[in-house]
Amino acid sequence: MPSPPVLRTIETFDASRKHHWRNRLYTVIFGTDTPAGKRFDIALLCVIVASVVTVMLESVYEIRVNWGDQLHALEWGFTALFAVEYVLRLLAVRRPVRYATSFFGLIDLMAVLPTLLVFVVPAAAPLMTIRIIRMLRVFRILKLVSFLKEAQQLVVALRASRRKILVFLTSVLTLVVILGTLMYIIEDSASGFTSIPRSIYWAIVTLTTVGYGDIAPSSAIGQTVAAFIMILGYSIIAVPTGIVSSELTKVSNQAQASFRTCSVCMSGQHEQSARFCKDCGSAFESVK
Amino acid sequence: MPSPPVLRTIETFDASRKHHWRNRLYTVIFGTDTPAGKRFDIALLCVIVASVVTVMLESVYEIRVNWGDQLHALEWGFTALFAVEYVLRLLAVRRPVRYATSFFGLIDLMAVLPTLLVFVVPAAAPLMTIRIIRMLRVFRILKLVSFLKEAQQLVVALRASRRKILVFLTSVLTLVVILGTLMYIIEDSASGFTSIPRSIYWAIVTLTTVGYGDIAPSSAIGQTVAAFIMILGYSIIAVPTGIVSSELTKVSNQAQASFRTCSVCMSGQHEQSARFCKDCGSAFESVK
Amino acid sequence: MPSPPVLRTIETFDASRKHHWRNRLYTVIFGTDTPAGKRFDIALLCVIVASVVTVMLESVYEIRVNWGDQLHALEWGFTALFAVEYVLRLLAVRRPVRYATSFFGLIDLMAVLPTLLVFVVPAAAPLMTIRIIRMLRVFRILKLVSFLKEAQQLVVALRASRRKILVFLTSVLTLVVILGTLMYIIEDSASGFTSIPRSIYWAIVTLTTVGYGDIAPSSAIGQTVAAFIMILGYSIIAVPTGIVSSELTKVSNQAQASFRTCSVCMSGQHEQSARFCKDCGSAFESVK
Amino acid sequence: MPSPPVLRTIETFDASRKHHWRNRLYTVIFGTDTPAGKRFDIALLCVIVASVVTVMLESVYEIRVNWGDQLHALEWGFTALFAVEYVLRLLAVRRPVRYATSFFGLIDLMAVLPTLLVFVVPAAAPLMTIRIIRMLRVFRILKLVSFLKEAQQLVVALRASRRKILVFLTSVLTLVVILGTLMYIIEDSASGFTSIPRSIYWAIVTLTTVGYGDIAPSSAIGQTVAAFIMILGYSIIAVPTGIVSSELTKVSNQAQASFRTCSVCMSGQHEQSARFCKDCGSAFESVK
Repeated sequence: MPSPPVLRTIETFDASRKHHWRNRLYTVIFGTDTPAGKRFDIALLCVIVASVVTVMLESVYEIRVNWGDQLHALEWGFTALFAVEYVLRLLAVRRPVRYATSFFGLIDLMAVLPTLLVFVVPAAAPLMTIRIIRMLRVFRILKLVSFLKEAQQLVVALRASRRKILVFLTSVLTLVVILGTLMYIIEDSASGFTSIPRSIYWAIVTLTTVGYGDIAPSSAIGQTVAAFIMILGYSIIAVPTGIVSSELTKVSNQAQASFRTCSVCMSGQHEQSARFCKDCGSAFESVK
Repeated sequence: MPSPPVLRTIETFDASRKHHWRNRLYTVIFGTDTPAGKRFDIALLCVIVASVVTVMLESVYEIRVNWGDQLHALEWGFTALFAVEYVLRLLAVRRPVRYATSFFGLIDLMAVLPTLLVFVVPAAAPLMTIRIIRMLRVFRILKLVSFLKEAQQLVVALRASRRKILVFLTSVLTLVVILGTLMYIIEDSASGFTSIPRSIYWAIVTLTTVGYGDIAPSSAIGQTVAAFIMILGYSIIAVPTGIVSSELTKVSNQAQASFRTCSVCMSGQHEQSARFCKDCGSAFESVK
Repeated sequence: MPSPPVLRTIETFDASRKHHWRNRLYTVIFGTDTPAGKRFDIALLCVIVASVVTVMLESVYEIRVNWGDQLHALEWGFTALFAVEYVLRLLAVRRPVRYATSFFGLIDLMAVLPTLLVFVVPAAAPLMTIRIIRMLRVFRILKLVSFLKEAQQLVVALRASRRKILVFLTSVLTLVVILGTLMYIIEDSASGFTSIPRSIYWAIVTLTTVGYGDIAPSSAIGQTVAAFIMILGYSIIAVPTGIVSSELTKVSNQAQASFRTCSVCMSGQHEQSARFCKDCGSAFESVK
Repeated sequence: MPSPPVLRTIETFDASRKHHWRNRLYTVIFGTDTPAGKRFDIALLCVIVASVVTVMLESVYEIRVNWGDQLHALEWGFTALFAVEYVLRLLAVRRPVRYATSFFGLIDLMAVLPTLLVFVVPAAAPLMTIRIIRMLRVFRILKLVSFLKEAQQLVVALRASRRKILVFLTSVLTLVVILGTLMYIIEDSASGFTSIPRSIYWAIVTLTTVGYGDIAPSSAIGQTVAAFIMILGYSIIAVPTGIVSSELTKVSNQAQASFRTCSVCMSGQHEQSARFCKDCGSAFESVK
């Protein structure tokens, strides 16, 4: 498997130049194989989690009242840390612009910006939880490549079923608009069906089997239509599942099946690891 | 893949005749490959969405109070537009009756009728959202054929599993009637189980894992039976999913398996690896 | 496909004897291929549905108050009809005991008994909805054999996955008892977690994603555990679905795949319909 | 299939020594094939269920008030029984330490400990339901080996999809944090979105389609975002199901595919149809 595109865009290890400090910095910050790089990544993940937990705690009224100032100080500390880290990353790579415009570069920037935004709009504080996206770096610490392979198989299967899912979603949305309108006509507004958008919202809540119960039909006809929608939703959930299952089966079969053909008897379906043709017994050339 | 039947029933491009204006009209209204046709389709979709949104907004009390007249005017404008479009479509095709009785012809008519119905029955206004069905035209703008292929694969898989799903649904309905009656006998009417139909409605709400909570068992026996129904519903959702998954896997395997045809007896369905025709025994040329 | 066991146990057409009236009765009541038999079955289904609907309507308070006597009379009429039908069935078959102890024989008896029970226990009236099971006869009217084939494929797949599902269910029940106890310890009884059985009931409601909301955690720790249970339930629903999907795929593959082997070159994987070996071109013996 | 590791760690039948009483004890307590062993296991299961039910009943207020003392006595009786059983198990095996530290040994100990803990912390009483884990012994009474085979197939499939599921869960958790924060910003705290952790709890309740309804969006924007989350949750439930389905299909295919082994180089994994060893090229005997 080739290295993932994200990593390739970032500047690789800079051995020819004299900047020893930059090379060392690069090894620590971007490296994942060296002990120093691994320690840095794990420390970073802990700081990210701690910073997101801080933002969460600050939103709880009882905690904010008692510990507000301390949490505020912590938030600023974390933001300063991330800002320093961002600058270091820019220094460590040879072409900073390329890093700054890469996927992870933008995410690293977004970890710093919201706190600065709080100067202008104090209500923007919760936006800091967006830092959680940085958690995706966790895959780099764990065995990177094999995890990316799994993720890629998922992505391939989902991309292959993209159109089937789009056809499915369009049909579901059309259905939901019509069913919502129907319930708006049938049901009394006292049951909560006060407008068509609210009825469509209810139809989605029902079709997806979430069922809050804040809006529920009370008339006999309404309950009959609702029962029909439920059974429909219960049945059609089979469709996307079937699509993805079928694609994943295909993708993982293809990953397994790459056969070679015998050059003597022209029979195919030989496994890559075979050294002799299973039909005529002639030797294969050694696999590269 | 052959062109979908719906399109074939509509009159094709009329080159032999002298009606240049009709030909141009046809190209714009029914064409999807020419720039003019594409622009028309996209504009049409925007108008459809706008018209459905207008009907939705009108149903919201706060908006109706303030903007009622404007929204009303807009609705009439959209209906006039659709009426003009419908007449133009009738003029553009050589055999209008054939278009008028086609699937999309009827849907186009239904986009106009409800507004006229409002003269007689004002409560019919929400029916106008039925226009959303016209949104299915969106598949014509996007790459028509390939989307239809995906939709067809879904339809083939669903048709193949039709009988299994019917057997499944009949069993589920029988089950729901019996479980609903059981709960009506067990549970107090104070918990909401006031009649058998309501109890059946509750059984459907529970079995499909929607769970509104407007009716919920309160006695110990009732909750035990309810727990049993939930685990049952949680388990049997596997059945339709399994049916559709298995069929989709089969359909998409068949789509992949490309067969070769014997040049002597012209029989098809020979596997790529076959060296002799399985019907007449004549040798195939060696595979490239 | 052989005829289903249920039908085989019932006495087949009695041609050798002189009882012409019994033969005719048998043709009408048990036949499904003759026009008379088909008409009888369809009429019977309508009566079954009508009788179940009558019992349902009688349970609705507003209807019972106004139409109670009429519905009561109808119920007695339907019961009399079913009793007559049951006696006719006993007369039509040559060995009545065998019919009376068969699956459908018992169900036919259960359609009559509850009404007689009402003399003794009036509260038993709703039991009459058990007649809905007779609806399963509907499969006999529609193309019997092919529907039974579909049903059998489902049954085979479910039986093959029986043990996997039992292992799964035992694990789920053990889990639910432990999680329910945990929540009973964690949560305040004010939130509805008043006893361990109730907490287990809540755990089932949550794990199966039904979520009534009549019992819901209110403390922070309780909500954290609940969130964990939800994600667990959301994930493990994949297991039974996966089991059934995989078994159905296997069953339907086996139904397709029954290959023959060439007696000359010993190559296998030839389709049943092949007339010549696709590997050596030698002719197969004609298939029986 | 080899015997499960758990059983192998426990001391096997001790035939060479003179301790006849120990051998008999071992046969009764650990044996599953002999009638005495089977009877013991079934009796044990009944006692386990009875003891768990006792703990459950004791937690119900109405029952505790009336039968508290009796239930308490029963609990002590069961605990005494389990303690005696544990000592007997220690005596029956030749190496007690090995049993005591095995999986089932620890579980057997945990069936005794919580009651002793109640002396110190009376609130620990519900912990006794942990005995339910001992129910897993039920697989030993039923056909042990084949059940374990099924369980193992499940475990193999789940282990194979471990990484895909981890990738999936990490993405879902990241998503839930971001969506929860979004709803905290959008929605009024009057609807129940009082803090970010609560909003995340709500996002999990919605995404997993549980939908309690204790927290539900009330503003138009909030309901729109909620509808989006529901459809998302409804769609992505397809992913873990697809993963497990696909793996189970693969595992059960591999279980079916029986390979042959080369008698010259002893390499395995040759297909039934192979005529020459793919590793050493030596000819196979013709297949029967």
